[in-house]
Amino acid sequence: MQTRSIETRAKIIQAAQDLFSQTGYESASVSEICTRAGISKGAFYHHFPSKQSVFLELLTGWLKGIDLGLEALRSSPPGPDQPLVRMAEILPEVIRAAEGRLPILLEFWVHSARNKELWDTAVAPYQRYRDYFRKIVSEMDPAGELDPARKETAALAVMSLSIGLLLQGVVDPKAADWGTAGRESIRMLLEGMTRRSS
Amino acid sequence: MQTRSIETRAKIIQAAQDLFSQTGYESASVSEICTRAGISKGAFYHHFPSKQSVFLELLTGWLKGIDLGLEALRSSPPGPDQPLVRMAEILPEVIRAAEGRLPILLEFWVHSARNKELWDTAVAPYQRYRDYFRKIVSEMDPAGELDPARKETAALAVMSLSIGLLLQGVVDPKAADWGTAGRESIRMLLEGMTRRSS
Repeated sequence: MQTRSIETRAKIIQAAQDLFSQTGYESASVSEICTRAGISKGAFYHHFPSKQSVFLELLTGWLKGIDLGLEALRSSPPGPDQPLVRMAEILPEVIRAAEGRLPILLEFWVHSARNKELWDTAVAPYQRYRDYFRKIVSEMDPAGELDPARKETAALAVMSLSIGLLLQGVVDPKAADWGTAGRESIRMLLEGMTRRSS
Repeated sequence: MQTRSIETRAKIIQAAQDLFSQTGYESASVSEICTRAGISKGAFYHHFPSKQSVFLELLTGWLKGIDLGLEALRSSPPGPDQPLVRMAEILPEVIRAAEGRLPILLEFWVHSARNKELWDTAVAPYQRYRDYFRKIVSEMDPAGELDPARKETAALAVMSLSIGLLLQGVVDPKAADWGTAGRESIRMLLEGMTRRSS
């Protein structure tokens, strides 16, 4: 893409994000996005087929931040903590990044729940994170000594904990030290997971 | 209240719930609620000052179901499981009840996040459940043998697990046996909580 084209695309995405935050996803129109971005409708449709496709690109960008954080953790030298416990280190960053975005995200899910095709796209990231947790738990038990059902429970519990902590952290950032809460919760859970077999 | 008045109130609440589910909270108007309920605007405003107040009454009704379930559990004879583990028994019921309501609830939270006064009302139930979990965890340790920070972590973790499991269960009811997942997750967590001190 040429520089100018990249700039236009970035302008559309920024304008859409601002508008979605202020007035909501549903009530924002392509016209308003164009006005705010200072571009023509033709230019908009040259880059995106619809408002929904701009949203999906926004969503991908947000998740990219989480993915990069998780990757950096996995490639960093192992410390005294389990990889899943260290994962909680990125929670405060994810909460900070989700601020102002969560309402849009929730509204989009509400909207998706009424649209079968969109729903599959909306839940795909969820499936991906759940598989990721399964993989990490299974790497914690290379010799296969733990009961598989117990590992499945642990992976689902870590997923549930992450979702619950993230939502609470965004709703009320100052109610707890969310990084510590995440680390201690996951540690407690993993201690429980290995208890019977240790 | 007279019988007729009670009936009118019930009609308004039912019509509002149906309309919110179908078209969303934001776009539903008092006029539409009245048309669907077959009543006049005067009758509506005799019972409720606003659309928002109808929603808050709906919300209270939904939470009442959860509260009754928790109360029944607490007053039933103790079994082999910890009270917090038994709590997971009501999860499938809560998930079933939340179906179709969660989108409205999420939309309402999105709406509340932009309105300071409403927000306090919207998060009050959350504070109440968090206090409830604190109380149960503290009852598990009558002699005060566990580290208070560890108990606080466990209470917050159970809250987070419950939120995360509820959301996932509503999004994808068939993806897991949510009652079992809840019971096993909480059990694992409590095993972790008592591990160091046992």
